[in-house]
Amino acid sequence: MALFDTSVEISIGSYIVFRLEEQGVKSMFGVPGSFLANFLDIVEQSNITWVGECNELNAAYAADGYARFRGGLSVLATTVGVGELSAINGVAGSFAEELPVLHIVGQQKTKDQEAGVNVIHTLGDGKYDEFAKSALPYTCSQLLLSNADIALGNADEKIDKVIIDCISKSRPAYLAIPWDLVDVKIVTTRLNDKLSVEEIPIDTDAEQAAIEHIYRRFVDAFSGKVEDNVVVIADVSVRRHHCTTEAADFLSVTKLPVYGTPLGKTVVDETSERYGGIYVGDLSSPDVKEKVKAAKLVLFLGPLDTDFNTGNFTSNIEQKRSIKLHFDHTEVGFATYSRTGMKTLLPKLAQRLQEFVKKASQLEVPLFRNKAVVDTKDKLITHDWLWWRVGGWFREKDMIVTEAGSVSYGVLDLAMPKDSGLLAQKLWASIGWSMGATHGATLARREIDGASAPQTILFIGDGSLQMTVQELSSMIRSEIKPIIFVINNGGYTIERLQHSIDAEYHNIVTWDYGKLLKVLSKVNVASLTQTYRVTKETELGELLDTGKLRDNGCLQLVEIIVGRDDAPPALRRALHIDKLGNNNESMKRAPLQRLIGW
Amino acid sequence: MALFDTSVEISIGSYIVFRLEEQGVKSMFGVPGSFLANFLDIVEQSNITWVGECNELNAAYAADGYARFRGGLSVLATTVGVGELSAINGVAGSFAEELPVLHIVGQQKTKDQEAGVNVIHTLGDGKYDEFAKSALPYTCSQLLLSNADIALGNADEKIDKVIIDCISKSRPAYLAIPWDLVDVKIVTTRLNDKLSVEEIPIDTDAEQAAIEHIYRRFVDAFSGKVEDNVVVIADVSVRRHHCTTEAADFLSVTKLPVYGTPLGKTVVDETSERYGGIYVGDLSSPDVKEKVKAAKLVLFLGPLDTDFNTGNFTSNIEQKRSIKLHFDHTEVGFATYSRTGMKTLLPKLAQRLQEFVKKASQLEVPLFRNKAVVDTKDKLITHDWLWWRVGGWFREKDMIVTEAGSVSYGVLDLAMPKDSGLLAQKLWASIGWSMGATHGATLARREIDGASAPQTILFIGDGSLQMTVQELSSMIRSEIKPIIFVINNGGYTIERLQHSIDAEYHNIVTWDYGKLLKVLSKVNVASLTQTYRVTKETELGELLDTGKLRDNGCLQLVEIIVGRDDAPPALRRALHIDKLGNNNESMKRAPLQRLIGW
Repeated sequence: MALFDTSVEISIGSYIVFRLEEQGVKSMFGVPGSFLANFLDIVEQSNITWVGECNELNAAYAADGYARFRGGLSVLATTVGVGELSAINGVAGSFAEELPVLHIVGQQKTKDQEAGVNVIHTLGDGKYDEFAKSALPYTCSQLLLSNADIALGNADEKIDKVIIDCISKSRPAYLAIPWDLVDVKIVTTRLNDKLSVEEIPIDTDAEQAAIEHIYRRFVDAFSGKVEDNVVVIADVSVRRHHCTTEAADFLSVTKLPVYGTPLGKTVVDETSERYGGIYVGDLSSPDVKEKVKAAKLVLFLGPLDTDFNTGNFTSNIEQKRSIKLHFDHTEVGFATYSRTGMKTLLPKLAQRLQEFVKKASQLEVPLFRNKAVVDTKDKLITHDWLWWRVGGWFREKDMIVTEAGSVSYGVLDLAMPKDSGLLAQKLWASIGWSMGATHGATLARREIDGASAPQTILFIGDGSLQMTVQELSSMIRSEIKPIIFVINNGGYTIERLQHSIDAEYHNIVTWDYGKLLKVLSKVNVASLTQTYRVTKETELGELLDTGKLRDNGCLQLVEIIVGRDDAPPALRRALHIDKLGNNNESMKRAPLQRLIGW
Repeated sequence: MALFDTSVEISIGSYIVFRLEEQGVKSMFGVPGSFLANFLDIVEQSNITWVGECNELNAAYAADGYARFRGGLSVLATTVGVGELSAINGVAGSFAEELPVLHIVGQQKTKDQEAGVNVIHTLGDGKYDEFAKSALPYTCSQLLLSNADIALGNADEKIDKVIIDCISKSRPAYLAIPWDLVDVKIVTTRLNDKLSVEEIPIDTDAEQAAIEHIYRRFVDAFSGKVEDNVVVIADVSVRRHHCTTEAADFLSVTKLPVYGTPLGKTVVDETSERYGGIYVGDLSSPDVKEKVKAAKLVLFLGPLDTDFNTGNFTSNIEQKRSIKLHFDHTEVGFATYSRTGMKTLLPKLAQRLQEFVKKASQLEVPLFRNKAVVDTKDKLITHDWLWWRVGGWFREKDMIVTEAGSVSYGVLDLAMPKDSGLLAQKLWASIGWSMGATHGATLARREIDGASAPQTILFIGDGSLQMTVQELSSMIRSEIKPIIFVINNGGYTIERLQHSIDAEYHNIVTWDYGKLLKVLSKVNVASLTQTYRVTKETELGELLDTGKLRDNGCLQLVEIIVGRDDAPPALRRALHIDKLGNNNESMKRAPLQRLIGW
């Protein structure tokens, strides 16, 4: 029986909040502003917690992190113009990395919009839809509510559509609400049914044909010698499209050797004996490179070709020996099967490949384990030591967040613990992102796993921290307790190593990071935050070993001093820097040409 | 004789820098990034100082302030995608407020763009021109340099055009340079001639006709009683279009009574006996309102109708008694004269109106002087006292910057000192703007007036400061020495007073502002910054009177504690709040509607 009949009406603001609660949204990120307040009144009375941020870009990053961890809808709310444009870079990142972030924008009154007058937060040209246009490349769906929607009685349907698009396409969407429409009443009959979020349309005949085609390729591959027949490369789209369980089950059943990728770190269990490390083209370790090169068949799960993910496009695995499982289509050699997707295909494929399990389990996989390092007294910390040391300290279920820049390369060589997660924005790579993302992801985890969820561990460079430093204040306000490792190298080291290593423009001002947390929150409970500064191996080692950082019950910041030009080994390999700075070609500076008489 | 013949070539990067130096640009604002470094190599070797900012939005705000003070070209440089989108809100503000900010974007290599591969800072869809599209509504001209421009040999001409457009239209423009084109050589023959920035095209016949029309209207206006014949309202476009000298000369010659507007504060000399305060529709003081209402003729100089500028559109001065001088056209009653502009028209009009000088000088102008206030011991600071107190402390030539929000109303009632300037972003009103703008404007002033230029004085609320707090670090890096008054009221007070005064979402975290400056710059020279905190009238009074703040040789921050719901008188008038919070209608909260079964 329908709960709501046609006689029951509800305000548009309440209708939207109803749908968001229905989708499990428990936190909403943003900054209040002139035209958002009446919608926020409604949010504050709902079961959704308003997470007020210091600025809109940080809010967008937090919404991104919230969507990343929960694997579902996330909501960003800002005022029009000034607010939404401040957030747009964060929204673009969520688009690039396929995250369902709904951007709600509080707009000026419809009468002002219709009259085209110059009210606050406009361009002075009477236009009110320019900002939505700017967001077009980064949103999969847009709704600018208007009086016409009220008159036509389809505001409910349109609101549902923009939310459904956001979730089903897993991309940001845009929903603008003029101030005076927030309280307008609409019917509630659609609320009798939960939003129907479309699955990928699957054609089971096409799926069956794809599976048979793959099976025949496996028959061929296993017809000769046992070694080097098939390898699996598990990539980032497995996680983006929520197929990690299916991928894990597939690998568990088939026993195939599996490799990761830079973007696909932690998509599969890296402690498994069948896992051999990451494949990243010419930058792969020699044994991994050899295995992939020799394989007759390479089965890609959710591949994404980017410069970072392919060793700057050096992967070059021939299409004829490739099988690529995507979320919405399948490629077997040169054949494409549309209306198929890995979520439903993987379990069936595992069954079909049963006969190869024994042979597959005999395929050799290079041993991939973390290097043990010791702490040398009075030795300054270097990246060569740092990452192995913290890698050995990671635990199962840890959520590690890495900022873009040099730290994103730090974890590439590590075997990550079982059930750990790695959050990183590696294609869009907007520095400063990880501060907001840590906040949002940690809140999402707290909602799911409760207050005793393992701590989030963030690695960030000093240049990135300065971009979005006020997020520390917002994290303290939310009472979350991540461990934040700040790699202090005095500037933008990844840029230095790519071009003009000594240029002044790579440098930043040194801050007193040790006092940051106290200054950004004048709370009287001294134990709410803790800060450390380490320069030597034994200093960090002791901090890690004493267990002080773990479950300390507060937000902690650990400043780690490293050399200006030092970098994680994976970054040095990527930039072909054998010794630090020994890369003359890319270090060459562009000269200014002065003309006579200038 | 031409300096450069066709045999002399120069790199594209050097060509651009040549043009920027030619236009007097001495500082360039931005953040380095993956695809900007080789252009920055060239900048660093030029006479232009690279001002590295903590993030791109702050850089855009600084570029805005630099353009505002110098009244000429300003340059913002960022990397593609992540960098430019982070800055776009600042650029949109410069568009709304008519400032010539050239946004230079360092892009990926042309071969990657042409191949459509997924390199860092892309959306993963192979598209490279989406970001420029996002900037279209906020830029008057765009150039995305490509290999075609090199092949056709017109890169020089196109670069010149985008710079000329930026300056002549006084709006932001967009110049994208792919990494590999920075060093490409082009001919230098165009550099023999300085850029020809177009003036407004004037038709002297039309101008003459407009002047005669205005003259006839003056004859009519002065035909009856002497009182209340003509008033002048000087507005913001006078400054935006660089006509302040012409306006001052016109007023000095004609002796006409003149009033300002909120946006047009300090456009004319507010200490003049012919100046009667600001006109802002129904929110004007009664005597000003009466004078404007009674006038037979209202001569507007550079008017701009916005909600803030017109007392929420209550000005309503009938067109038949209006004369409006714009930068590119003239309205006399219902007649429009195109191809005329106030810059050339004003001096001629002053001559034509000579015969009315004596009568005009007899027209009565309400006395407009600052109220003298005393400091009461142990009395907490309120807005009613604060603005008069600092107003009395201002000096000639001070540059005052006011953030959006409640402080922007603080100065409205003050008679500003002679030759002082007021920088405020009152239409776009993006909070946080003033931090960057103070930085940029102060650098511009130092370039023009030298190191002994008077200090800049900034008023900002705590919510706004938190948006862009890292700009304090950049200011210290640039060794500028503004006095920064931070109004600490625990949140977004202007929002509180407009809607749901007690709502939690208006609140922010209290920071330890007293330690901010030290933390954001670990410099060893203790005297480089100074911080104060005042809660009582006598505390601030002493600080002002001792002269400590003036010429103290360092950047200073003064935290002023005021009541959460306290606001400047002009803001209370605008919101019809007689007593604090006594505005029930707008304080009403939007209710959440719960449905049965929710």
